[in-house]
Amino acid sequence: MISLAETVLRGDRLALGRVLTLVENDTADGRAALEVLFPHTGQAHLVGVTGAPGTGKSSLVNRLALQFRTQNKRVAVVAVDPSSPFTGGALLGDRVRMKDLSGDTGVFIRSMASRGSIGGLAQATASMVQIFDAAGYEIIMIETVGAGQSEVDIARLAHTTLVVEAPGLGDDIQAIKAGILEIADIIVVNKADRPGVENTEKALKSMLELAHPAPRVFSHHGGTIPPTARGGSASPGEGQGAGKTDTNIWIPPVQRTIATDGTGIAELAQQIVKHGEYLRLSGDWTVRERARLESELEAALRSALMNQFHARVPEEQFGRVVDQVLERSMSPSEAVRALLNGRPK
Amino acid sequence: MISLAETVLRGDRLALGRVLTLVENDTADGRAALEVLFPHTGQAHLVGVTGAPGTGKSSLVNRLALQFRTQNKRVAVVAVDPSSPFTGGALLGDRVRMKDLSGDTGVFIRSMASRGSIGGLAQATASMVQIFDAAGYEIIMIETVGAGQSEVDIARLAHTTLVVEAPGLGDDIQAIKAGILEIADIIVVNKADRPGVENTEKALKSMLELAHPAPRVFSHHGGTIPPTARGGSASPGEGQGAGKTDTNIWIPPVQRTIATDGTGIAELAQQIVKHGEYLRLSGDWTVRERARLESELEAALRSALMNQFHARVPEEQFGRVVDQVLERSMSPSEAVRALLNGRPK
Repeated sequence: MISLAETVLRGDRLALGRVLTLVENDTADGRAALEVLFPHTGQAHLVGVTGAPGTGKSSLVNRLALQFRTQNKRVAVVAVDPSSPFTGGALLGDRVRMKDLSGDTGVFIRSMASRGSIGGLAQATASMVQIFDAAGYEIIMIETVGAGQSEVDIARLAHTTLVVEAPGLGDDIQAIKAGILEIADIIVVNKADRPGVENTEKALKSMLELAHPAPRVFSHHGGTIPPTARGGSASPGEGQGAGKTDTNIWIPPVQRTIATDGTGIAELAQQIVKHGEYLRLSGDWTVRERARLESELEAALRSALMNQFHARVPEEQFGRVVDQVLERSMSPSEAVRALLNGRPK
Repeated sequence: MISLAETVLRGDRLALGRVLTLVENDTADGRAALEVLFPHTGQAHLVGVTGAPGTGKSSLVNRLALQFRTQNKRVAVVAVDPSSPFTGGALLGDRVRMKDLSGDTGVFIRSMASRGSIGGLAQATASMVQIFDAAGYEIIMIETVGAGQSEVDIARLAHTTLVVEAPGLGDDIQAIKAGILEIADIIVVNKADRPGVENTEKALKSMLELAHPAPRVFSHHGGTIPPTARGGSASPGEGQGAGKTDTNIWIPPVQRTIATDGTGIAELAQQIVKHGEYLRLSGDWTVRERARLESELEAALRSALMNQFHARVPEEQFGRVVDQVLERSMSPSEAVRALLNGRPK
């Protein structure tokens, strides 16, 4: 299987598709390929694109891909599609989107139907991204349907997170916006030819002020982490922050677009590149990279620990314990204790 | 702390609120209280209410609570609010909703702001539900903002899942509907006074036919599980199914409502009760109960295993491994192997 991974590194699309499938199905061959590919990761700019249904995210991603292609950048799209928890609802989306991009070998689009478990989805997405990264795709867009916590979590793993809004989606969504804005590096008001765009933009800007009350050293993960240089501990004292406004502060811009005719797309692509530069200059690139890998590692650990557990405790023993919980003769905590201590390794 | 849990069992609202907080904050006292309360659970009818923003779910839940109160049933509402991943966006919703229900000691509403991790949210919700169940609340509604996988997962844990739709929310949402419909036991078309309600209903019904091509033995978890009696293995042969149409088949009804004026609410409440009766007669009640407890147990196991791991592996050792992954000198799988085997217990 090592040869398949090496074929991916040489730029073979067919091999890439096969490895993606092997990894998505969580096969041993897929894991082996990932191992070979991992040292080649860490080059791509990961761009999360999230927003409620109806904002036109998919068209926007499509246009952005075309835009980055004009700059000769290789673009991959991972569309995380939770629209169908059980059936594969992702196929149609693929076909619709491929239309403008088909035949272009610099673009690779992969839709993922949602899996039963959320953890599985996040882990599979992370692996897909690693494969594209190793295969030399420079921009990797991860498209998720916003509003859900899991999708927000997936989008947060990107270097740059775009939150897409659109005019006329109703007031109930405002509450959602307030929360999701906090993870936005760039806010996109798509469908900007619709009536009400001024109001939407105004509302977003005032919510943004609430979310970012004053210019501050920006960090992706809520707190105000001082910029850290790669591998070092070059965190400036608090007093120094003020003099470094150019590299240390990022105030999320609000960008109008009309994905259907391309308006604002070039500007948006520029904002994305600019944010990438800001991340590298400020040291936040490494901070986010580290947070992402740490979170991937935690997820992999959880799976491994659970696998060890299931290898240790026979299925029927587990079933008997569930029976006792169902009969209320044992509480869930007692059950956990019994399962963990009952058969020491 | 045992006395606090006992006070909850005696119906003390103040104690209930305190235990809910202790459990939501995942304190030792909270866990101890849960242990005392768990044997008293298993009586409540858990009703999941999910749907996209803008469908009027909260008003619907409010109205349903009032309706069940006219039948003298004690009602609890757990509103899982992912609108703000970082700040508590749940407070306003509480106040808006409490208006009609305040002063009624037969109703308890609890909003949960989303936590960092999805697993944490699902686990906290499950614990909240157990406390309300033990405290004697007969109907427990779990309200989640649909569209996200995690929210769908939370809603699936209920006995009866309501999927709420509304006319005029745009075509992009159709894809979502197709997926979410598969988990619906009852479909609600709220805001039925809006133009386009006939089209919405027609679209839902045809999607429903796609999701449930022919009347079949219904099960909540995708497959066609034969009805199982509590504790027994009374699964009838396939041939017998046809003769049991009354108890073995549930075709999700589509119910129009106008939550703002109460139209259709009595009928909806009746459908919920009817679905509960169907579950008990068919044996699916136990099937779902078992699936729910099994999934809770798995989640608790994952946490416990992770806690054991962190107790075993010092934070700085973990940090050093993350560093090596960040430098690409170690792959995530190698890191997991190193962390799990490096220091055997």
